[in-house]
Amino acid sequence: MNAVAPLTGEQVRAYARDGYLLLGSEFLAPDVLAEVKGAVPMMLAEDGPRRVLERDGRTVRSVYGVHQTNDVVARVSRLPRLLGAVQQLIGDGVYVHQSKVNVKAPFAGDQWEWHQDYINWLRCDGIDRPDLVNVAVFLDEVNEFNGPLTFIRASHTEGILAGSDNDGMPAGYEEAPSWTATLTATEKYQIRHDVIADLANRGGLVNAKGPAGSVLLFHPNVLHASAPNISPFTRGVLLLVYNTVRNPPRASDPRPDFLAARDLVALAPLP
Amino acid sequence: MNAVAPLTGEQVRAYARDGYLLLGSEFLAPDVLAEVKGAVPMMLAEDGPRRVLERDGRTVRSVYGVHQTNDVVARVSRLPRLLGAVQQLIGDGVYVHQSKVNVKAPFAGDQWEWHQDYINWLRCDGIDRPDLVNVAVFLDEVNEFNGPLTFIRASHTEGILAGSDNDGMPAGYEEAPSWTATLTATEKYQIRHDVIADLANRGGLVNAKGPAGSVLLFHPNVLHASAPNISPFTRGVLLLVYNTVRNPPRASDPRPDFLAARDLVALAPLP
Repeated sequence: MNAVAPLTGEQVRAYARDGYLLLGSEFLAPDVLAEVKGAVPMMLAEDGPRRVLERDGRTVRSVYGVHQTNDVVARVSRLPRLLGAVQQLIGDGVYVHQSKVNVKAPFAGDQWEWHQDYINWLRCDGIDRPDLVNVAVFLDEVNEFNGPLTFIRASHTEGILAGSDNDGMPAGYEEAPSWTATLTATEKYQIRHDVIADLANRGGLVNAKGPAGSVLLFHPNVLHASAPNISPFTRGVLLLVYNTVRNPPRASDPRPDFLAARDLVALAPLP
Repeated sequence: MNAVAPLTGEQVRAYARDGYLLLGSEFLAPDVLAEVKGAVPMMLAEDGPRRVLERDGRTVRSVYGVHQTNDVVARVSRLPRLLGAVQQLIGDGVYVHQSKVNVKAPFAGDQWEWHQDYINWLRCDGIDRPDLVNVAVFLDEVNEFNGPLTFIRASHTEGILAGSDNDGMPAGYEEAPSWTATLTATEKYQIRHDVIADLANRGGLVNAKGPAGSVLLFHPNVLHASAPNISPFTRGVLLLVYNTVRNPPRASDPRPDFLAARDLVALAPLP
C-alpha cells in the first residue's frame, strides 16, 4: 500500500472532467529526467521486434517494453509519487501493461491519427474495462512545433467512439508482424471525421506542452492525435500504461509480452 | 502614387529584422473578409491547371492566379492600405506576380516542407532581386492545430540557403506538368537540415497565428514550413505575392501566366 497521494482533489476532478492532466516538471525529482534521458540511447540501440521504425524505414519511432528491459525505466515505474498519482486515479494494485519510448525525431517524426487507446487493449488484449491510465514523461521540451499530443477535451466521456476498422497492414509495413498494425501512425480503428469534429467543437482542442520532465496523465478513451515533428528539435516521451491487477488481459491469443505484459504483480513503491 | 502608409516605423523595422510582420484583423475593413470568403467556393470550383490537389488526389490544395480570374481578389489586391503597406516595404510601382488561395482542408491539408520562396522566382521566372513581399490574408482563424505557417525568425537575412535540388517529379504528381514540381509539398529546392537547425537555434521558431482577417506580410527569403492540418477546422489563406515593375521576370521559357504574371502594370489603389 502506497500512502503517497500527490494529486489534489481539484487535479483528480480535472482529470475526470477533461480526460488528461498535465503536471509540471517539478512533479518528479530533477535527477529522474537526466537518468531516463541517459538510458534512451541504450533503449534505441536494441534491434528487434520491440523497435518500430517510421514510415521512412530508417528513423526509430518507438521502442516497446522498456520497463521490462531497462532498469532505469523499471525504477521510474515504481517512483512513489508516480505510483501514488496513478493509484489515486485507478485504485490500488497497479502494474505496467505497456511501455514505450517515442522518439519523434526532428524533421522525421510522423503524425499519429486521431484515436483512442483503449480499443486496442480491449480488442487485442481482452482487457474488460478502460480502468487504465497513460503516464507520459516528457524527455524534451514539448512545444507547438515538435508534434505535441493534441487532445479533445472531455472526449473520454463518450466511451468507445463510432469508427471503422482498417483491414490489412498499413502502407510501408506490409512485411511486418500482424500486431504491428496496432502500433503505427495509420490507426487500425478509425474514428469518423464528423464524430471528431463534433467532439472538437464541444470540448475544444488542447496541446499538451511543457518543459522536459513534465508528466502528463491521460485517459485511455480520450481522443488524441499528434502532428508530425517538422522542427529541428527532438520530442522524446516515455510512456507507461498502468492497469490494475483486477482488470487483467484475457485474450486467448495474446500479443507479445512487450505489448501486453503478462506479469500481473502489483508494483511496490521504491523505498 | 499611393499616399497611404499604414505601417509604423517600428513595424517596418520589425519586418526587416524578423522577415515577417503579423497585422491584426483590424488592418482590413470587416467586409473584406466576408467578401473574399464568399468568393472562395467559385475559385475552388474551377477545374484546370490552376488548381492543384493534395497528395490524396481528391482534396483541393491550392488554386493559383485568383487575382486574374476573380474580381473580389483583384479588388483586394488594390486596397489602399494593403498596397500602401506593400509599397512601404518594396517601393512604388507594385503588381501581383503570383496569387493563390490555399485551402488546407480539415484532416487532409498536407505539410509544406522547409523552404524559401524566392529561389523559385529566381530560377523559374528569372526575377533578379528578392524585392518581393508575400501578403497572406487569413480566411479562417489560424491556430496551432490547423497548420499555421512556421517561420524561422530572421532567416531571410542569410540570402539563398545551401541546399540540394530534388530532381524529377514528387510522389503522387508523376503525370502532372513539370512546373507542378514547384507547387507541391515536396520542395524542389531542399535546404539542409543542419542549416535549418542552426538558424532555428539562433532565431527561434514562430507560428503565425491569429483570427480570420489577420494579414501576414513575409519576406521571400524567410525560411518557413507548415505542419499538416490534423484538426477538424479549415485553414484557408489568400496569398498575394507583390513585386515591382522594376524587377521583372526575365525567364526565356516562362511558367504559365497564372504562376508568373506577365502583365507588369503598376496597380492603382482603389478609389
